[in-house]
Amino acid sequence: MKVKDLQRGETVVIALGGNAISPPGSEQYEDQLREIRNTLKGIRKLIHPGRYRLVFTHGNGPQVGDIFLQNELTKDSLPRYPLDVCGAQSQGLIGYMLVRELRNFLKEDQERGVSAILTQTLVDEDDPAFQEPTKPIGPFYEQEEAGRLKREEGYEMVEDAGRGYRRAVASPEPRAILECEQIDSLLEAGSVVVAAGGGGVPVINKEGDLLGREAVIDKDLASAVLAEGLSASLLLILTSVEYAYLNYGKKDQRPVKRADPDQVRRYMEEGHFAAGSMKPKMEAAARFIESGGKKALITSIEKAEVALEGKGGTVIAEGE
Amino acid sequence: MKVKDLQRGETVVIALGGNAISPPGSEQYEDQLREIRNTLKGIRKLIHPGRYRLVFTHGNGPQVGDIFLQNELTKDSLPRYPLDVCGAQSQGLIGYMLVRELRNFLKEDQERGVSAILTQTLVDEDDPAFQEPTKPIGPFYEQEEAGRLKREEGYEMVEDAGRGYRRAVASPEPRAILECEQIDSLLEAGSVVVAAGGGGVPVINKEGDLLGREAVIDKDLASAVLAEGLSASLLLILTSVEYAYLNYGKKDQRPVKRADPDQVRRYMEEGHFAAGSMKPKMEAAARFIESGGKKALITSIEKAEVALEGKGGTVIAEGE
Repeated sequence: MKVKDLQRGETVVIALGGNAISPPGSEQYEDQLREIRNTLKGIRKLIHPGRYRLVFTHGNGPQVGDIFLQNELTKDSLPRYPLDVCGAQSQGLIGYMLVRELRNFLKEDQERGVSAILTQTLVDEDDPAFQEPTKPIGPFYEQEEAGRLKREEGYEMVEDAGRGYRRAVASPEPRAILECEQIDSLLEAGSVVVAAGGGGVPVINKEGDLLGREAVIDKDLASAVLAEGLSASLLLILTSVEYAYLNYGKKDQRPVKRADPDQVRRYMEEGHFAAGSMKPKMEAAARFIESGGKKALITSIEKAEVALEGKGGTVIAEGE
Repeated sequence: MKVKDLQRGETVVIALGGNAISPPGSEQYEDQLREIRNTLKGIRKLIHPGRYRLVFTHGNGPQVGDIFLQNELTKDSLPRYPLDVCGAQSQGLIGYMLVRELRNFLKEDQERGVSAILTQTLVDEDDPAFQEPTKPIGPFYEQEEAGRLKREEGYEMVEDAGRGYRRAVASPEPRAILECEQIDSLLEAGSVVVAAGGGGVPVINKEGDLLGREAVIDKDLASAVLAEGLSASLLLILTSVEYAYLNYGKKDQRPVKRADPDQVRRYMEEGHFAAGSMKPKMEAAARFIESGGKKALITSIEKAEVALEGKGGTVIAEGE
């Protein structure tokens, strides 16, 4: 897919991975700002102001983990918030950095502003993921304390890589982005929009009432739901590698340069793409195309511009 | 001012004070949710869906204080964010609670949704407030440690009510709400909007670059700037008392039932209205009217509905 194939006014959803904001070693605030500025430079042509309707989504792993941990560490003296609220906080934190730096990047070129919208993502109350929480969060505990938390708080506790026990939460499927229409309104008015941070705050609809859930939503899958809701033309997933690879890390690894959703599914059945890493990205890309999207592109920030010119990256689209 | 004088489609900015979300004794998450639900019930008629363009602003004192304190208490093991970023986090935290509970309150009556937008407020780099920081934040320190922080970090430190020393930050004047046009777009599209939380994140424009500032902005003054920017008809400031009072707390206290901006200024010169409490509310109300707003109403949540019918509350408007 070439940038020049995109028509003025088409919608592009850009999903920023953790490495776009806070790669390992860049945990401090000033580091994160530097990384964000570099990321924006890397996709300079795409964010040419006013040409496309641009939505940025982003991960929040390190930030929400730290906020949750702060809550645990200070809970004896300060109010403790559940994980869904910590996720909302992380949207504020990262949204502010992104909006401010996007405004600084676009400068006078930006005519109609940049804004971040707090986003809730609807999940099913009976999503099977809730029966089997898998995502470790928060501090490490000794076995005894882990047992107590399981009994008294009802937490699912998992052993994590020999370093101790951690609470595990579910990663349910995103069903709908509650603020999709508002995001669309902002785009219509010409704003660049930051949304669905961390995959959105997970909420269920229980007999008409929205309730938060202590869970995490994959940000790429949520981005695909949002891209579908906005009838986006392009879902651009920025990560740390130029391509998705078959046999990744092995001697015979080779890049996937182009695939349709069926091929993606076959590759998955063959065991390619790491869970929690490339797999949800490929799954998100495939779902987006299946839902009627034109193209999805998975590539690195460094290669984004050439990939957008058709010279790199993994393109997922219907066969030609 | 009566609700029925408001025409369909007019804009109302509702500034929620700390007592609307987290009055003393309601610091925990579940307490805050309960308070928010009670607040919404109290202004049921006003938030009748689709009738007015509604914007909620809110304070963030307890929440941003706690987030800042969490950052200080865990800074040896986790990244520490400056106060402006903590403020952005608090917008996510409170915005999520408000949006979710507004959606639950409006239920199927809501046609076009509710959304919270991250808000930055422009302040002047050379605002004199920066020369004389007055707002204490964060933990208490012993005199020696306070001296060290002053020398090494350049913090302004103030003695706080005999309980120790605290860092003080500036409370500069809000000049513009950077996301005003986006808020207007959301209102145009029919959304109820939550914005300018905590007065907005303070940023300066330094030679074209937006930079965050560790400061706090009065949420009522910021609400007045927003109300002006949106050409609102009514600025409703909800607080813990039914009226602003002359000689408040004295034997001869009496309510201000109606005043124009000039009268408000005279009262202020005479020393009525407490700094950091009723004074900024009266100042915000006066400024809003001076900027062309129709009416400002200051009252309690409990009395809001009768006050909106013209039977209570302090009305600031031009003389009739």
